[in-house]
Amino acid sequence: MRIYDREAAPHPARIRIVLAEKGLDDAVEFVSVDLMAAAQKQPDFLAMNPIGKIPVLQLEDGTIISESTAITEYLDNLDDNPILTGTTPREKGLIHMMQRRAEMMMIDAIDDYFHYGTPGLGAALRPWRMPDWSGAQEWGQRRGAYAVANMTYFNDLLAKQPFLAGDRFSLPDITLFCGLMFADIVGLPIAAELTALHAWRNQVAERPAVKNRTGQTPLPEDPARVNVVP
Amino acid sequence: MRIYDREAAPHPARIRIVLAEKGLDDAVEFVSVDLMAAAQKQPDFLAMNPIGKIPVLQLEDGTIISESTAITEYLDNLDDNPILTGTTPREKGLIHMMQRRAEMMMIDAIDDYFHYGTPGLGAALRPWRMPDWSGAQEWGQRRGAYAVANMTYFNDLLAKQPFLAGDRFSLPDITLFCGLMFADIVGLPIAAELTALHAWRNQVAERPAVKNRTGQTPLPEDPARVNVVP
Repeated sequence: MRIYDREAAPHPARIRIVLAEKGLDDAVEFVSVDLMAAAQKQPDFLAMNPIGKIPVLQLEDGTIISESTAITEYLDNLDDNPILTGTTPREKGLIHMMQRRAEMMMIDAIDDYFHYGTPGLGAALRPWRMPDWSGAQEWGQRRGAYAVANMTYFNDLLAKQPFLAGDRFSLPDITLFCGLMFADIVGLPIAAELTALHAWRNQVAERPAVKNRTGQTPLPEDPARVNVVP
Repeated sequence: MRIYDREAAPHPARIRIVLAEKGLDDAVEFVSVDLMAAAQKQPDFLAMNPIGKIPVLQLEDGTIISESTAITEYLDNLDDNPILTGTTPREKGLIHMMQRRAEMMMIDAIDDYFHYGTPGLGAALRPWRMPDWSGAQEWGQRRGAYAVANMTYFNDLLAKQPFLAGDRFSLPDITLFCGLMFADIVGLPIAAELTALHAWRNQVAERPAVKNRTGQTPLPEDPARVNVVP
């Protein structure tokens, strides 16, 4: 298997944690995508993923699987022993529900904030799923504020149960963890009073699969380029 | 099981097709949510789904599962014979990849267009995942144009294979079908030259589970309220 990604980027971090949780690090060859040169927007890459984002998984037979949820479904089921995506109908339902909440309420909003509400990687490298227009910066700033407001939802949930989908660590915990890592990088830290969210994050950070994946240089390299939502 | 939804709304239609494909119609009690009265934004409903959108599934034990992908995972696996969400790792990966593409590239963009680029259901009923601001209408219009542009991607894919994830009808076909139904309603029809997309849609429309679900009164009731992207 081959994975097109970039070290230190938030979405690739999700899959690198999945690989480590599943013990699949050695089964994968990583191909580094030069984001700053907009390699993810060239025809070769767009033929693999029309959305123009990393990571992308390529199987031995050439089959392409993009989207972190889809890549995780593939990797987690390879050994017929899923530990991240559920086994019963109820587990699968709760995991995919929380996965969409962690995406929509956190990591997607942080991504929009980074690319539109701050200088991000520059206008030319904004994700194509969102066309550029005059109101983009205000929209991006509001997306950041939305993500910050949603931290309270996750805090309150994690005050009642150990992990997002219940008693066991699973896919949405990885997504929220990487979303909050991204939030830190762009200057949107978790408020001190959200103690359950801090405690959960500290616990996840101690997992061997996570600990080995989070010592990377964050993006962007110069944090001073990043604005903070007032 | 109980499903909170609203007849004729695009996302509920996804789950009603899933129920029919699985032969589960009689296993469900439907509770109609009064969208025009903003019932989906009241505390009772937000306690079930903080995103404030339908449909929501409630199990006998009170467990809540929101998000169409998650509800489908639950329903499709109930009889240990999944026909919509895949059985092999490769099928699961491809189905979830295309599911995210059908969401991000079509139904989410149409939803944004309807609520922001057109009068939609009015400013008070806009989904909470997107705060209101001065540039909202321009953003909504661009989201509609993005969805229309993406119809070509799906057409070209369906010129090469019968269904979105390969040879078999699955979850993302339902999502794209309902996305295009929504697009019709808001005045963004498929261009005549996208013949593969038309042929696929005609074929899906003939499925018994779909045919019985799509004769509903579309939203909004007065199409003249809806603007068309130029």
